[in-house]
Amino acid sequence: MSGVLSTVAEAHSVDDLRRWAETVLPSELSDFIAGGSGTESTMAANRAALDRLTVVPRVLRGGPDADPATTLFGSRSRLPFAVAPMAYQRLFHPDGELATARAAAAAGVPFVISTLSSVTLEELAEIGGERWFQLYWLRDDAETLDLVRRAEQSGCRALMVTADVPVMGRRLRDVRNGFALPPHVRAANLRFGARSSAHETTGAGSAVAAHTRAEFHPALTWDHLDRLRSCTGLPIVVKGVLDPADAQEAAARGMDGVVVSNHGGRQLDGAVASLTVLPQIVEAVGGRCRVLMDSGIRSGADVLRAVAVGAAGVLVGRPMLWGLAADGEAGAALVLSLLGDELREAMRLSGCADLAAVRDLTTRVVC
Amino acid sequence: MSGVLSTVAEAHSVDDLRRWAETVLPSELSDFIAGGSGTESTMAANRAALDRLTVVPRVLRGGPDADPATTLFGSRSRLPFAVAPMAYQRLFHPDGELATARAAAAAGVPFVISTLSSVTLEELAEIGGERWFQLYWLRDDAETLDLVRRAEQSGCRALMVTADVPVMGRRLRDVRNGFALPPHVRAANLRFGARSSAHETTGAGSAVAAHTRAEFHPALTWDHLDRLRSCTGLPIVVKGVLDPADAQEAAARGMDGVVVSNHGGRQLDGAVASLTVLPQIVEAVGGRCRVLMDSGIRSGADVLRAVAVGAAGVLVGRPMLWGLAADGEAGAALVLSLLGDELREAMRLSGCADLAAVRDLTTRVVC
Amino acid sequence: MSGVLSTVAEAHSVDDLRRWAETVLPSELSDFIAGGSGTESTMAANRAALDRLTVVPRVLRGGPDADPATTLFGSRSRLPFAVAPMAYQRLFHPDGELATARAAAAAGVPFVISTLSSVTLEELAEIGGERWFQLYWLRDDAETLDLVRRAEQSGCRALMVTADVPVMGRRLRDVRNGFALPPHVRAANLRFGARSSAHETTGAGSAVAAHTRAEFHPALTWDHLDRLRSCTGLPIVVKGVLDPADAQEAAARGMDGVVVSNHGGRQLDGAVASLTVLPQIVEAVGGRCRVLMDSGIRSGADVLRAVAVGAAGVLVGRPMLWGLAADGEAGAALVLSLLGDELREAMRLSGCADLAAVRDLTTRVVC
Amino acid sequence: MSGVLSTVAEAHSVDDLRRWAETVLPSELSDFIAGGSGTESTMAANRAALDRLTVVPRVLRGGPDADPATTLFGSRSRLPFAVAPMAYQRLFHPDGELATARAAAAAGVPFVISTLSSVTLEELAEIGGERWFQLYWLRDDAETLDLVRRAEQSGCRALMVTADVPVMGRRLRDVRNGFALPPHVRAANLRFGARSSAHETTGAGSAVAAHTRAEFHPALTWDHLDRLRSCTGLPIVVKGVLDPADAQEAAARGMDGVVVSNHGGRQLDGAVASLTVLPQIVEAVGGRCRVLMDSGIRSGADVLRAVAVGAAGVLVGRPMLWGLAADGEAGAALVLSLLGDELREAMRLSGCADLAAVRDLTTRVVC
Ligand SMILES: Cc1cc2nc3c(=O)[nH]c(=O)nc-3n(C[C@H](O)[C@H](O)[C@H](O)COP(=O)(O)O)c2cc1C
Ligand SMILES: Cc1cc2nc3c(=O)[nH]c(=O)nc-3n(C[C@H](O)[C@H](O)[C@H](O)COP(=O)(O)O)c2cc1C
Ligand SMILES: Cc1cc2nc3c(=O)[nH]c(=O)nc-3n(C[C@H](O)[C@H](O)[C@H](O)COP(=O)(O)O)c2cc1C
Ligand SMILES: Cc1cc2nc3c(=O)[nH]c(=O)nc-3n(C[C@H](O)[C@H](O)[C@H](O)COP(=O)(O)O)c2cc1C
Repeated sequence: MSGVLSTVAEAHSVDDLRRWAETVLPSELSDFIAGGSGTESTMAANRAALDRLTVVPRVLRGGPDADPATTLFGSRSRLPFAVAPMAYQRLFHPDGELATARAAAAAGVPFVISTLSSVTLEELAEIGGERWFQLYWLRDDAETLDLVRRAEQSGCRALMVTADVPVMGRRLRDVRNGFALPPHVRAANLRFGARSSAHETTGAGSAVAAHTRAEFHPALTWDHLDRLRSCTGLPIVVKGVLDPADAQEAAARGMDGVVVSNHGGRQLDGAVASLTVLPQIVEAVGGRCRVLMDSGIRSGADVLRAVAVGAAGVLVGRPMLWGLAADGEAGAALVLSLLGDELREAMRLSGCADLAAVRDLTTRVVC
Repeated sequence: MSGVLSTVAEAHSVDDLRRWAETVLPSELSDFIAGGSGTESTMAANRAALDRLTVVPRVLRGGPDADPATTLFGSRSRLPFAVAPMAYQRLFHPDGELATARAAAAAGVPFVISTLSSVTLEELAEIGGERWFQLYWLRDDAETLDLVRRAEQSGCRALMVTADVPVMGRRLRDVRNGFALPPHVRAANLRFGARSSAHETTGAGSAVAAHTRAEFHPALTWDHLDRLRSCTGLPIVVKGVLDPADAQEAAARGMDGVVVSNHGGRQLDGAVASLTVLPQIVEAVGGRCRVLMDSGIRSGADVLRAVAVGAAGVLVGRPMLWGLAADGEAGAALVLSLLGDELREAMRLSGCADLAAVRDLTTRVVC
Repeated sequence: MSGVLSTVAEAHSVDDLRRWAETVLPSELSDFIAGGSGTESTMAANRAALDRLTVVPRVLRGGPDADPATTLFGSRSRLPFAVAPMAYQRLFHPDGELATARAAAAAGVPFVISTLSSVTLEELAEIGGERWFQLYWLRDDAETLDLVRRAEQSGCRALMVTADVPVMGRRLRDVRNGFALPPHVRAANLRFGARSSAHETTGAGSAVAAHTRAEFHPALTWDHLDRLRSCTGLPIVVKGVLDPADAQEAAARGMDGVVVSNHGGRQLDGAVASLTVLPQIVEAVGGRCRVLMDSGIRSGADVLRAVAVGAAGVLVGRPMLWGLAADGEAGAALVLSLLGDELREAMRLSGCADLAAVRDLTTRVVC
Repeated sequence: MSGVLSTVAEAHSVDDLRRWAETVLPSELSDFIAGGSGTESTMAANRAALDRLTVVPRVLRGGPDADPATTLFGSRSRLPFAVAPMAYQRLFHPDGELATARAAAAAGVPFVISTLSSVTLEELAEIGGERWFQLYWLRDDAETLDLVRRAEQSGCRALMVTADVPVMGRRLRDVRNGFALPPHVRAANLRFGARSSAHETTGAGSAVAAHTRAEFHPALTWDHLDRLRSCTGLPIVVKGVLDPADAQEAAARGMDGVVVSNHGGRQLDGAVASLTVLPQIVEAVGGRCRVLMDSGIRSGADVLRAVAVGAAGVLVGRPMLWGLAADGEAGAALVLSLLGDELREAMRLSGCADLAAVRDLTTRVVC
């Protein structure tokens, strides 16, 4: 709506922050955040699915309190979100994950630390707040399990295993930009993070994709998850599930949760929107594990939609990076407070005192 | 269609009047009228739902009379509309509600006086014509019931309780404009209307929203309506109902009507379009109470659509304010005469002598 | 596609001819042809319904002949079209109806003479060719029946009674243009055609609409058609039917055909697209009367679509006027030859030797 | 995405190559490749049908191998594609079919030689690689069967009979361009190819369409296919089938395969999208013959979609010509390697080790 802001404080929506961030960031970084794979059709489908889902509000059910708090994998969250795991946040601000994790801690929501975090697990532990660790299973099993140990020891309270990156999606923006990490940003928790193929500009293709190819396990199976299950007491959440059969498998194997996600449209171009399959997945797992959702959430109204069709909560992805880029910790905090305020307001406007009430709302898909 | 009009009399549609009004009004006032909450997705959904509903006209059923008159809550209306309650009309023209109420009286349609009217109930009583009073339940019960008494004593013939504003929707246009009332416009019927938080420009956010927060009851329940039911003989209409269960509740508690409304897309962003849920609500109440509808009505064809899927009538919102801004009472009258003429013509073109015939028309939703 | 043509002969589609015509015509005449009523939503719906209907062609069924000939109300037509009745064709070319009627006769398709023809029935009779007469029932019954007699005596072979103009639709383009007939164009078959209210520019509103109001019967019923039935041996076709119940009524009362039509989107704004209701109407009449269709036909592919869902044939409306405006009789002939060639080609490409085969094609509505 | 490339090697998608090709080609050649018939509605429908089909990926099924190899009509193909038969490829590059056939051979995918190839069957045989021959049945039966013999003798391993060109579709771009072959490009395998009506610029209409009219059999039937069946041992594939009944007929008559195709939107304008009818056709033939598909395939994601709804493989059409025009054999090879890489990646991202797994994926049509 507003063309230009003069200070970040004038941002009244995530979209305002995105615009601001895109002003301050070099375009290859804006692209790295915003881009999707291929024709970006899945990215568009995420948005379209949210836009087409309308909610039928209730009235005269009192209030005024609308409490969106919830418990996710044993940890209390003041809002039904966690900050999505996102790599290399020092790209966008010198404080990187320190800033977003502090914002999350202050807002009382879990922060998910990426395997590709540019800040170490131990440094992030000093912040306090609820932290979960996102695991990319590496080609080297020992290093992988070592990461899990460090996550446990540094106080992470859940493991989120990303299942949808056997190979990185073809993100044409990054390919065209020949995107590579600058020397000062590194995968701080990996053995060879300081100087990896992710730093090697070859002039063609994404160096980050090349790095993924070199380091990540390309052929993960449920057996890997069983192995993980047997060697950690932490809750395990599988991120990147879209087929109800996979969600059932996760439940059957004792996983604690799934994230219905297409990785924000960054992996399989042509994949279904997360919101589209969410209700079926909720039904398929039948309460045996918690169902989170991500991909495309940009407002409290979007959170309301996701919860209304069955999500226990959502991961907040790109908005956090726009906030971070715009104003470091303050910008990241602004994202969470905007989304929280919007959600609380949406709950009050739909007559819902808590998330259970939201789940009982009727929804209508329009086209 | 036409880019520019040279006089208001050249307006041949509500859209012409909107354009004219937007030329003469300061942009923050145009925004205050036109805006919706959040991304304005519900506002767009209202329009889309109307556009997608097509009507199957009948032929060779005689005429030429097409009489759109009806009885709404005991009062005769020459057209199946009432003027929607809208706050602070002196913002748009010095005559404010006096002008729109006079236009309504002349057209023979009920005028709904907002709790936030900038003209007193008693001054409006002098105009004559059918008047209803819209009630925002205030934090102060005594002041609320006092308003009800004044409405009764000044001759209002129905009470319309707005149920969808426990808090004001986040209307980003107003927030960005730091919208506040000028000193000369006030909530003329409220105790502290003359100088309220609605006047305090704080530079950030909408002062009108702040005022709502300060004054309105934030936690209305059906018990409040029972209380109202027990202390007034006037028909009671609940405005802002979208879920059939709420409509049934209203009927069960002896309410006389509901307005299927999302407040013109100004409250819950992401709420379903009024027209989409209207048929279900009509079925749910099964004749036990009258079902009005609003949100997005811009032409006689739109009224035909709403009545064809079951509405007893509609509230006309923003169009009245564009008319008022464009030319005071004459502009407001032009809106009602355009809509009336369009409706009568649409009835004749669909072979309907009266509204009962309109209700029997077949409709088809296209996509 | 092509921006500009340098001669009419370069027109390879109806759309080319439209563009050419809109170059040579004064804008108020282009508007009079192209416009629809209200927001022109029905006009858009006509096009959308055609675009969304796809056809499943057959292969390897021989050929090469594809004969689109048919019999409509006892008269042979080389193509499943008739030229739609359209008023005042001298507005667009000095030869007016003489040109379009000659083109129709040469192409072997029926020409429907409008009640508001600017050339007399008797002059048109000299051309020969199949002619039908379109009847607007006038306020004056005697003049009406006199028109019927003249139609019979001048050799018209069918009567098409227009049922959808109890009043003229609110065509905002004409209203804004204050459209009125120039002195040299008149309703040549009407008693007061030479100097009527259709000529009186009042500066506001459409004079043609005013004329309609003054002259046409505003309250036609099925009884009028019974009366007509009893006093003529000609086939009677009811034009402007959209509800299956009305089509059944027509069949039950011994009418010979109906035209499923919304008058090209010029009457009820918000009316359903003709194509949308066509299949139901074909089913409803069950062969008891012939079902034609019009509104939006612009190519042979459109004719194929209409026939595939059950039309016995279509009326060609605006395209004829664009042809006429572009190049008189030659332009009108070009329209018919383009449409005929396109249809024959479409039949061959869908493996259909005749219209019965087209009717057996499967169709799919996409959205 | 990228506006301008500076070398072909910077092409990261088929769309990049199209843009590049359209820079280097004269516009009438760009048009000849890109154009469709009529309003190009079928061309648009092809794209829309692909875009609306989303795929539900699976996770944690191992890998990393994703082998898209398949056997098509007895010949092994490294990818589930064949290069579509396309006429006169010397128009786009001096090497013409030699370049595209070499690229196909190198990529291990079958190359379909058009009847209107501008290089002889025998010259193409020297390249090696899997070749199939596309047959346009000519008016002269003897010449037709002679072509079949030459195809057999030069080592083609399948015959693909095109059933959807009894006459050429009305491709308005070519008609407007008065498109004709330059002297040096000819139908190298036809008796009168060297100097045919395809070369005669008449200033109006497409000379290529005129040539088709002059030479092709305009009334092919299933009997022709029976005849062919009885005089060749090669697998026979019918190209251009859209109705399940025709697919069943092909199966019943012992044909080995069908190509579900609307000829890239170049024949019947208004025809259904290939993808829309594909599932029904697969069901109708029930494994009795192989079902290929073409029309609109532009990426590996599109191939995934087609296979997921049942195609055994696809034909790659226009993309090959853009590659050819952009950089001869290297450009054509780039198309195949892009599509192959994209497909392999899409398979890995959807958890599919082979095409059978792809066929088991769930799909969702969104609108
Ligand atoms: C820049 C960026 C980096 C990401 N890095 C990771 C990552 O390291 N691990 C992971 O599981 N997901 C990663 N994701 C995916 C997010 O966790 C999340 O699924 C996605 O961003 C949600 O979509 P949204 O951004 O539209 O909300 C990344 C996303 C972005 C935008
Ligand atoms: C400027 C403005 C002020 C409004 N004030 C009130 C109000 O005081 N009380 C109320 O119940 N509704 C209020 N409404 C909502 C209207 O009564 C009505 O529900 C809405 O305008 C209908 O949508 P439409 O404008 O699209 O027709 C207001 C709407 C507008 C545009
Ligand atoms: C300029 C114009 C004049 C018309 N005059 C008449 C008329 O006199 N009588 C009538 O029955 N229909 C009349 N029609 C409607 C046509 O017969 C026909 O229903 C309509 O044009 C079909 O839609 P199309 O133009 O989109 O094909 C007129 C239409 C146009 C565009
Ligand atoms: C320039 C061009 C020439 C073609 N020539 C032939 C041909 O000679 N024989 C044939 O069967 N199909 C021919 N086709 C159709 C293709 O084989 C194929 O069906 C179509 O291109 C698929 O659609 P796509 O281009 O959108 O992938 C031709 C297509 C194009 C674009």
